Amino acid sequence: MPVADDRLRITYQLTCTPGEDPEAKARDIAFEQTVELPPAIVPPDIAARMVGRVDTLDPLGDSRWRAVISYDRVTVGIEVPQVVNLLFGNISMKAGILLTGISWQTTLLERLGGPAYGIDGVRGLCGIAERRPLVCTALKPVGLSAAELADLCFRFALGGIDIIKDDHNLGDQESARFRERVVRCQDAVARANAQTGSTSVYFPNLANGSPAVTEQVEFARAAGCRGVMVSPLIVGLDTMRWIARSTGLAVLAHPSMSGVFFQPDHGILPEILYGEIFRVAGADGVIYTNAGGRFDFSQATCDAINANLRKPLGALRPGFPVPGGGVDAARAPHWVERYGVDTILLIGGSLYAQGDLTRASRRLVDTIRRVCDA
Amino acid sequence: MPVADDRLRITYQLTCTPGEDPEAKARDIAFEQTVELPPAIVPPDIAARMVGRVDTLDPLGDSRWRAVISYDRVTVGIEVPQVVNLLFGNISMKAGILLTGISWQTTLLERLGGPAYGIDGVRGLCGIAERRPLVCTALKPVGLSAAELADLCFRFALGGIDIIKDDHNLGDQESARFRERVVRCQDAVARANAQTGSTSVYFPNLANGSPAVTEQVEFARAAGCRGVMVSPLIVGLDTMRWIARSTGLAVLAHPSMSGVFFQPDHGILPEILYGEIFRVAGADGVIYTNAGGRFDFSQATCDAINANLRKPLGALRPGFPVPGGGVDAARAPHWVERYGVDTILLIGGSLYAQGDLTRASRRLVDTIRRVCDA
Repeated sequence: MPVADDRLRITYQLTCTPGEDPEAKARDIAFEQTVELPPAIVPPDIAARMVGRVDTLDPLGDSRWRAVISYDRVTVGIEVPQVVNLLFGNISMKAGILLTGISWQTTLLERLGGPAYGIDGVRGLCGIAERRPLVCTALKPVGLSAAELADLCFRFALGGIDIIKDDHNLGDQESARFRERVVRCQDAVARANAQTGSTSVYFPNLANGSPAVTEQVEFARAAGCRGVMVSPLIVGLDTMRWIARSTGLAVLAHPSMSGVFFQPDHGILPEILYGEIFRVAGADGVIYTNAGGRFDFSQATCDAINANLRKPLGALRPGFPVPGGGVDAARAPHWVERYGVDTILLIGGSLYAQGDLTRASRRLVDTIRRVCDA
Repeated sequence: MPVADDRLRITYQLTCTPGEDPEAKARDIAFEQTVELPPAIVPPDIAARMVGRVDTLDPLGDSRWRAVISYDRVTVGIEVPQVVNLLFGNISMKAGILLTGISWQTTLLERLGGPAYGIDGVRGLCGIAERRPLVCTALKPVGLSAAELADLCFRFALGGIDIIKDDHNLGDQESARFRERVVRCQDAVARANAQTGSTSVYFPNLANGSPAVTEQVEFARAAGCRGVMVSPLIVGLDTMRWIARSTGLAVLAHPSMSGVFFQPDHGILPEILYGEIFRVAGADGVIYTNAGGRFDFSQATCDAINANLRKPLGALRPGFPVPGGGVDAARAPHWVERYGVDTILLIGGSLYAQGDLTRASRRLVDTIRRVCDA
């Protein structure tokens, strides 16, 4: 929940080892994440203003406690890297600290900005006026040439897939260099669109840091791409934010490397990392590993991610949940009903498994239309 | 160990749940990190070349197995983001997978480059001809003005601290904006050096993503700084590499957010993440939380980090271990003897606790000199 006042409030679930004092643990977080000095040597005026303040501490039973700590806006800063550092920088190296909630300040949300397109904007980008989930697929596997990937892209677009993105394993490998791939895949989508009259889009994967990523962005935009995919935990959350705020491209966030945050008693809840932090940092859509696929998120976690991406959060646009990671095309009706129309279904393997990509894609999109019309 | 051939070999410790087949688990990694498709639908030529190859699988007892999986150089790519994605991207979202070793290809090491300065280079930068550990401290706490931080910087430099760096909580907050801070602190160091004839350096903390970080780098360089600090897991490992390879600045890596990787049975061993991945990505020195401080690394882990940073690794320069996080100045002789001269001791709080920073710094540096001369 955004709050109008000056402080960022963070909720942690603390798990105490035998003999560990929850009050001391909460106070330790408040110091570690701000002044990073022993209490005795912090100048009093700084201690009063800068050290995090333990607002509440409540027992949850089973050696667990809920602590709410609030931070002055100066310690929070106005940039993604320092916000992330405050959220889980040094305390990542402690134990038994799970970030379960953030009360964002309205001014910070305004400053960071969130999605440039959001759900309605991406829908418009893809020319989808109907109230139905969008369908996304991935170009793979790594090792195919740019021409082969573009051929897959063409066939998916012919079949009406809304967003065709690179697999996140595609960087700038010699088998399919970034520039050739972007030109060929964008051209393939345009040719298919010309043939069908639909408006599929191709989102290349950007796998570079600064400053090379700025050249890749420029290249993709010049080639006619309307969006890109990035793995923000690898390329940098602030780089994603820059793409969102400054380039006119839509952004899909890939969850690569995020799994290390999802420990039972330590880390950041998936619905907070994906549903709030990624969204605040500019993701128009956040890919996550859906329940029942190759990974092990619970249904409740997926529902919570979806809810956070779409909920009111200051003036931020909502982001699209993009469940993937082994979603079966045959189960699409189930997911449409469960997740609703403001969803992008990411389906890869089970389209490839059907051989005829165009027919498989068309069948999937038709099924989704039918479910939504019913 | 670097290998001359074409494949990147990664060693994982697999922890199997009851009934989980270690062979299937290893094969799953090999697919997940490359083609990301079910085995049955991977084109045979791609399967033969691109899917990771399970080279060995050996029982370690107690439901644990050691798997060595090798990857074709095309899947590895030639860029930090894809390398990191291959190392622990999607499998971060699985369980019971601990990355314990990497056999780097010589060509990849050449391409990525590692530290620009390394141990000898940083020693030269600081004008330290003696064979002794360097001493580093941090400007803090957040909330002080740029003038106040510069005053601390002056006093540390007068006392002979070799490297004076910003605390990693300092971004571009209104209390001490980045540009003013850099100008004032660099000026303070220069004034102190003129007075003492020594050559302390000031490293500002960069807390921006692309492309703002390129402006910060340019600004710091123009102000006369010889190096910077970054938190590579927040700002981006590839951005750190760019700074190392292209700007002429030395780079200290801060471990912010790295703790989530250090789970007992899942993640990346600290000596691999800090000692190899950070080093390969350009860190001249890697800050870590020393044993016996505010965090809980074992002595064996710290020793292993030090060993990996300094060991021969292709043609890469060695990196400085920078133990910190609550190192007591009074214990400096112990750490000098244990860790040797090719170390940077990062000591903050226990200098601040002594009140007179110049005297405390001088005493510390003198002690270290005496221990090394003995």
